[in-house]
Amino acid sequence: MATLVVGSIALDTVETPFGRAEEALGGTAVYFSLAASLFTTVQMVGVVGEDFPAEGVELLRSRSIDLSGLQTQTGQTFRWVGEYDYDMNTAHTLDTRLNVFEMFHPTLPAGYRDARFVFLGNIDPVLQLEVLTQITKPRFTALDTMNFWIQRKKAELTEVIRHVDAVLINETEIREYTGRYNVMRAAEEVQALGPRCVVVKRGEYGSLMFFDDHISAVPAYPTFDVKDTTGAGDSFAGGFMGYLDTCDDLDEIEVRRAAVYGTILASFAVEDFSINGLTRADQDSMTSRYTRLQDLARIDRPAVAGQQLIIEGV
Amino acid sequence: MATLVVGSIALDTVETPFGRAEEALGGTAVYFSLAASLFTTVQMVGVVGEDFPAEGVELLRSRSIDLSGLQTQTGQTFRWVGEYDYDMNTAHTLDTRLNVFEMFHPTLPAGYRDARFVFLGNIDPVLQLEVLTQITKPRFTALDTMNFWIQRKKAELTEVIRHVDAVLINETEIREYTGRYNVMRAAEEVQALGPRCVVVKRGEYGSLMFFDDHISAVPAYPTFDVKDTTGAGDSFAGGFMGYLDTCDDLDEIEVRRAAVYGTILASFAVEDFSINGLTRADQDSMTSRYTRLQDLARIDRPAVAGQQLIIEGV
Repeated sequence: MATLVVGSIALDTVETPFGRAEEALGGTAVYFSLAASLFTTVQMVGVVGEDFPAEGVELLRSRSIDLSGLQTQTGQTFRWVGEYDYDMNTAHTLDTRLNVFEMFHPTLPAGYRDARFVFLGNIDPVLQLEVLTQITKPRFTALDTMNFWIQRKKAELTEVIRHVDAVLINETEIREYTGRYNVMRAAEEVQALGPRCVVVKRGEYGSLMFFDDHISAVPAYPTFDVKDTTGAGDSFAGGFMGYLDTCDDLDEIEVRRAAVYGTILASFAVEDFSINGLTRADQDSMTSRYTRLQDLARIDRPAVAGQQLIIEGV
Repeated sequence: MATLVVGSIALDTVETPFGRAEEALGGTAVYFSLAASLFTTVQMVGVVGEDFPAEGVELLRSRSIDLSGLQTQTGQTFRWVGEYDYDMNTAHTLDTRLNVFEMFHPTLPAGYRDARFVFLGNIDPVLQLEVLTQITKPRFTALDTMNFWIQRKKAELTEVIRHVDAVLINETEIREYTGRYNVMRAAEEVQALGPRCVVVKRGEYGSLMFFDDHISAVPAYPTFDVKDTTGAGDSFAGGFMGYLDTCDDLDEIEVRRAAVYGTILASFAVEDFSINGLTRADQDSMTSRYTRLQDLARIDRPAVAGQQLIIEGV
């Protein structure tokens, strides 16, 4: 039982209307790993510079995250500077310094090649495919991407999409990738390329999931104080993949439950800056939010009395 | 058993990426009445000009809608011209000619004063309050509003809000009215003014409902071909209020079911221009969509096996 993630490891400087974080731990691989580590063993593939803080490594180790795929290279760790307005669905990038991430080339330690669950964070699709081909016998693979790759390497991205079981993607990105505004139509097109599962992430509106012929929706967890949405999608992916790694069957019921856990981990992530919200998640709080989401989304059967009256009314 | 609606009756000219309608039947009172008439008797209060097409009146009559509150005045019927881009959440108004609607003064026929359910469409809040005070003993009252009144008559609007049981409002409007971005916070503030129930309409993302201390979410019905979203909110209101009018108890369970019916009627409305989608709704198709929404939103309990594995994983 192990879930592999490849993606960025960053020091993020983020400003929102509710505060600011300076050079704080971030990046896809970090958010994903912390979320997934609540369910399973995580194998992390990524790169940091010599300046990466020791406390960051310590935190990941304390969650039993396997860091044998973490490279440390000469130079600086990837930096991202961004800000959010009240509409926290969209980040505005102020500065990106790829640093050691620019030349990142993921090579898997031998012990990672039999990973059963694989999440390809939004790196260059060429690298995503390289990682995928190094895995001997994956049980369930998923990818995320972003506008940068959709615009610059669409053919390569399409090639990776053909090889994964699931695509987890933002609403604006799936619209851009397919050229279709209607998300149902857009998801159908992505499914037609191969993936059984397409999860469309909609920020504060929750997510839609397309799995085989089924469509399901999970509302966002009702959060009264959203502080910083950085890492929400990666935390979703970590909860989603981590839960699946605990399942005997990867059927519709389990994939739906996985989307609920993804939603829950995302809700922790947005409650504070950097990873500070996410690291507060534990079994009890996850179970409590699961129950809350069930109640939030519950649709009761129409009343028989109501139906009779309806028929009279026509 | 009767539900009263006061609101605009219009001839709409609408262009979307998927087609165009010219001087077609529209307006809050029309959409609301057609939706609510699937559940109950509707009493309509509104005004048309001498040019209002006889077929419009015929259609409303054929649905047993009580038109004794429909005034016909010298002049032209209210005209609205608008267009939508692919993002059909926002209408762009190209032209508004109030015509006879400008001097509209709603006076209720004697037979309307004992209406139990009252929906105040987004007219001048001063008129909304006038209508409300003419009702002897309403059981459940609701209002909608729009940016125009929020900006120009906020104090008057607040006064009506204090007197109704429910506010049905768009997400952007409740943000503007309260000055709060977080919809949970915004809804809390509106509830604090008096209404037990606040429904935040979010277009293709569905709706959130706040009823006493409960929060619930209904996703939008998955529509693969949205043609024209004009009237979706009014159709929602019609399904919502119409269903409630059939209920013995106005408790949380029934109000939640009402929001599902609202969602269903809105889904019919957006499938075609003008009222052409809405008039296709019938008992069978509503029941089928109700079941579909239940399946879409269903959140299964977490598996016991999964939970055990989770505990091991930590």
